[in-house]
Amino acid sequence: MIRCGDTHVLCTATIDERVPHWMKNTGLGWVTAEYGMLPRATHSRMNREAKKGQSGRTQEIQRLIGRSLRACIDRPALGERQIMVDCDVIQADGGTRCASITGGWVALRLAVNKLMKAGMVTSDPIIDHVAAVSCGIYAGQPVLDLDYPEDSEAGVDGNFVMTGRGTLIEIQMSAEGSTFSRDQMTTLIDLAEIGRDQLVTVQTSVTA
Amino acid sequence: MIRCGDTHVLCTATIDERVPHWMKNTGLGWVTAEYGMLPRATHSRMNREAKKGQSGRTQEIQRLIGRSLRACIDRPALGERQIMVDCDVIQADGGTRCASITGGWVALRLAVNKLMKAGMVTSDPIIDHVAAVSCGIYAGQPVLDLDYPEDSEAGVDGNFVMTGRGTLIEIQMSAEGSTFSRDQMTTLIDLAEIGRDQLVTVQTSVTA
Amino acid sequence: MIRCGDTHVLCTATIDERVPHWMKNTGLGWVTAEYGMLPRATHSRMNREAKKGQSGRTQEIQRLIGRSLRACIDRPALGERQIMVDCDVIQADGGTRCASITGGWVALRLAVNKLMKAGMVTSDPIIDHVAAVSCGIYAGQPVLDLDYPEDSEAGVDGNFVMTGRGTLIEIQMSAEGSTFSRDQMTTLIDLAEIGRDQLVTVQTSVTA
Amino acid sequence: MIRCGDTHVLCTATIDERVPHWMKNTGLGWVTAEYGMLPRATHSRMNREAKKGQSGRTQEIQRLIGRSLRACIDRPALGERQIMVDCDVIQADGGTRCASITGGWVALRLAVNKLMKAGMVTSDPIIDHVAAVSCGIYAGQPVLDLDYPEDSEAGVDGNFVMTGRGTLIEIQMSAEGSTFSRDQMTTLIDLAEIGRDQLVTVQTSVTA
Amino acid sequence: MIRCGDTHVLCTATIDERVPHWMKNTGLGWVTAEYGMLPRATHSRMNREAKKGQSGRTQEIQRLIGRSLRACIDRPALGERQIMVDCDVIQADGGTRCASITGGWVALRLAVNKLMKAGMVTSDPIIDHVAAVSCGIYAGQPVLDLDYPEDSEAGVDGNFVMTGRGTLIEIQMSAEGSTFSRDQMTTLIDLAEIGRDQLVTVQTSVTA
Amino acid sequence: MIRCGDTHVLCTATIDERVPHWMKNTGLGWVTAEYGMLPRATHSRMNREAKKGQSGRTQEIQRLIGRSLRACIDRPALGERQIMVDCDVIQADGGTRCASITGGWVALRLAVNKLMKAGMVTSDPIIDHVAAVSCGIYAGQPVLDLDYPEDSEAGVDGNFVMTGRGTLIEIQMSAEGSTFSRDQMTTLIDLAEIGRDQLVTVQTSVTA
Repeated sequence: MIRCGDTHVLCTATIDERVPHWMKNTGLGWVTAEYGMLPRATHSRMNREAKKGQSGRTQEIQRLIGRSLRACIDRPALGERQIMVDCDVIQADGGTRCASITGGWVALRLAVNKLMKAGMVTSDPIIDHVAAVSCGIYAGQPVLDLDYPEDSEAGVDGNFVMTGRGTLIEIQMSAEGSTFSRDQMTTLIDLAEIGRDQLVTVQTSVTA
Repeated sequence: MIRCGDTHVLCTATIDERVPHWMKNTGLGWVTAEYGMLPRATHSRMNREAKKGQSGRTQEIQRLIGRSLRACIDRPALGERQIMVDCDVIQADGGTRCASITGGWVALRLAVNKLMKAGMVTSDPIIDHVAAVSCGIYAGQPVLDLDYPEDSEAGVDGNFVMTGRGTLIEIQMSAEGSTFSRDQMTTLIDLAEIGRDQLVTVQTSVTA
Repeated sequence: MIRCGDTHVLCTATIDERVPHWMKNTGLGWVTAEYGMLPRATHSRMNREAKKGQSGRTQEIQRLIGRSLRACIDRPALGERQIMVDCDVIQADGGTRCASITGGWVALRLAVNKLMKAGMVTSDPIIDHVAAVSCGIYAGQPVLDLDYPEDSEAGVDGNFVMTGRGTLIEIQMSAEGSTFSRDQMTTLIDLAEIGRDQLVTVQTSVTA
Repeated sequence: MIRCGDTHVLCTATIDERVPHWMKNTGLGWVTAEYGMLPRATHSRMNREAKKGQSGRTQEIQRLIGRSLRACIDRPALGERQIMVDCDVIQADGGTRCASITGGWVALRLAVNKLMKAGMVTSDPIIDHVAAVSCGIYAGQPVLDLDYPEDSEAGVDGNFVMTGRGTLIEIQMSAEGSTFSRDQMTTLIDLAEIGRDQLVTVQTSVTA
Repeated sequence: MIRCGDTHVLCTATIDERVPHWMKNTGLGWVTAEYGMLPRATHSRMNREAKKGQSGRTQEIQRLIGRSLRACIDRPALGERQIMVDCDVIQADGGTRCASITGGWVALRLAVNKLMKAGMVTSDPIIDHVAAVSCGIYAGQPVLDLDYPEDSEAGVDGNFVMTGRGTLIEIQMSAEGSTFSRDQMTTLIDLAEIGRDQLVTVQTSVTA
Repeated sequence: MIRCGDTHVLCTATIDERVPHWMKNTGLGWVTAEYGMLPRATHSRMNREAKKGQSGRTQEIQRLIGRSLRACIDRPALGERQIMVDCDVIQADGGTRCASITGGWVALRLAVNKLMKAGMVTSDPIIDHVAAVSCGIYAGQPVLDLDYPEDSEAGVDGNFVMTGRGTLIEIQMSAEGSTFSRDQMTTLIDLAEIGRDQLVTVQTSVTA
């Protein structure tokens, strides 16, 4: 369970020794993710996705989580198995996709630790930390970790997925009903790096 | 959050002042329920319902929860509004439908308390407690609160929804691959009443 | 075709020598059921399920029919084959699930007779009769075989699936908008046993 | 219930005084149709459409039935109401779409008679009979009323929807894996007219 | 790309060396078709089929295209492979199914030419031309190649699929809200043959 | 029709004077987009989306197109109407989402010109150009306008949506199986600005 402000996400990892057809006999591992949100997670109740199928937004988020976590994986070292990371939002107050990536990494780390203790994996397949930070420009000011009221009013909204050693995996910056300059972009990335450092410290402490 | 052994269900109630079309201008209230289970709630990971639509089992359970909770509601006293009870299973170890009903009653009680404090409802629309107990015959012995290994091997499996004052709302008894006698049925109901008394005590303590 | 009052259900059994994957090489047989209702079977026309998918109620009923019929089957004696029982309601006036179970047993009995005559099954895999009775409390009185106007107004509604020798396979008792006592429950089961005896006599006469 | 050889179709008509939105205040009536087939209607069991949605073939047939029946309707005389004709195939042995149209006309005729007796319709809105005949070329010979073994082997297969007075509403002629000449076409229509005369005689006798 | 008046259809053929399961080891080829229409192809924008699933009309048209093209194919000569013809309507002004068949034949012809040049097919599997013509009775006059305003008002509407040497593959004639005589039918077929001759000339010129 | 290398996208804009319910009486306009791809647009044939529903990727792209085009719209100046932009990919060779945005702007510009000529809009609601550029790092080198073979092998892939005057609307940068540095990010944005200038010149020439 990861908590970022009032956003609570339950992240679990399931190891599956059966791999999909297209991966058989490659000797490579895979990491994939699914994402969901309880109907009552938001301030006003949402409709239940099981009733109407996953939205495009949900599918986009779960592809992002999977892609982000795979960036830190040495696939041959993981061996021919699949790890499925489930991120279920229990309470949402902005930044659920970032919390899911950061918490998903913790679940992945713990699952891999278990594989290593069991001797099923010998060399550590996790190359680096992966943490994600949302920030934006709110009322003209750059703000880290937007909560929901800020997020929905933000002119510019960014999500940054970064590694522990400082490189980038994914940048999504988006303006709704306005535009932004390259200077504003630079300011937001600087801010995101500060947030990333804090998250990596927390990840290290809970998985040590 | 209700915990029965290792079964954890998150129950919430949402008050909706807009009622469905067919209830308009009747002056009567309504209670309905939705049910879901996180993919990782069970011992081995299940498929996510948002991906393939709600199963018939899920729909059957949510109709049961709604029907059970309505049995204790004075609909004119509730007034023309709807209360939606969401029951989401975070961890499952048998008896999730019973835990959902018992916990759903707590969420409903707290939501109605709020309405009464706000003066929106003057006379208490909740007539009685509603609690549900699962029991079965396991290895020839009647057992209360089956956990999952017992449940899946039980020759006879029963769910009993009861009121605080001792009457019954719903009985579901089912034998898979065997049958049961009327004497066995009587034994199970006696056992269920003991369980019901314990649950009503807990319900009272958390909603007082 | 089974007729109970104005409820007419067409029951057929199809023997399939190909079994599902998970049953292969077990040597065990299986019985499963599907249920449907013509749009004009009810007093006012229903929507056609082929247009909107099977409802949760339909899926619940077909699982009940399958579970009930399997309770009387000696699976090793049936051998590694599957019997699919189709129950299609042509005209409905209450009690369609009970008529489906009782009539489904007849279709199953006739299909198994055919297998035995053909020498494909040597020892009779049908252990006992299975018959289902609906009864309820209507205007304060216990009533057997509720027809539709009674059924929809009944405070308490019960379905009882029983074997020929007197044991129980399934009990479903439900109160909508009220509750019932243990004494009322006992009265209904006594009544159901009378109904069961009549149905077993009819089943014997049409399959002899 | 119409029987053509071993093809049995249950046809019913439902009068609906509520019309679809686009017909309101036009003063015109409408006739529409739905078509279904029980899984066990064919020689080997089909999958149930309620489980997987209506096939394109089913939708095509029900549009054909509706279009055919509307050709004999005086829409102003019917008045602003809708008649829904349901055709459910209980047993199929070829020619189910033709049997549905011919039987659907009978159901429509009886429903309109009822409206006229009740004084809701004053001038008869049914202008003429509608009957449908299937014929084809089987083993080089033109054949009327193909049954299933003939139908599935026929090189050329035709369905002809005709009125009582001799005009045509719909012609569908189709060759699978071969072609046909204009002379062969003429022979088949001559044959279809003979079949049509027989069906109109039967329609008259059952609706008089 | 075939253009008939203002109807533009993009036809392509894809050769697939993998055949469906039921065709394996038969040595026979297969031709199948899919059909689609861009939302803006019609005068007022249609809904996008990808959002709500293929309509029955779309499925009916793509079965017709496949059946028509197969009538001119020598399946053993084609060899065990499948050719998928895609017909996508870019702009629609009536007669899209006929344009799809006529243009689909061109795409098929070019794909087979390629197979023959590559030496994968030795004897030409295309026996004859296939061309389709729509005509109808508009304002009392027989008209060839109905464009959309005519088509939607036509009392009688016909589609004729014909071979180059003069035989017929499919006739669909349909009256909406009226009927037609055998003489009118004859007039329309005569007209269709004139249209067919023109199309065959064009097909020959673009595939020579 | 926009062509970028071998990527061809058909972009059209439809003006709808009826607005969605939530926009009524706001006086504000709206721009939305839909996206599709013909099955044969790619090198090997894709499945048809109409058969299996829109993928999450398709929904994500159409939301991006709508959001990008809205960034250049003065909603009060547009007035209470909706413009739907359809982008259908006829042939795909990388960069279809960028081509759709750039071409969608052209379709939008032409539709608004038409509204202005008709006097339905008095002040120009289009504030600026919107153009989108894809670039990436391929074999260690930054490359503009990735075509498909480059795109699918690119370690880092970026899409940049920009205005004519130099500000940013959306940045999506993503690494699959690797990561990238801030310097690499800066290089890619510099490159994207060069591409943007070229596109704006083309947009101006075709809409002048």
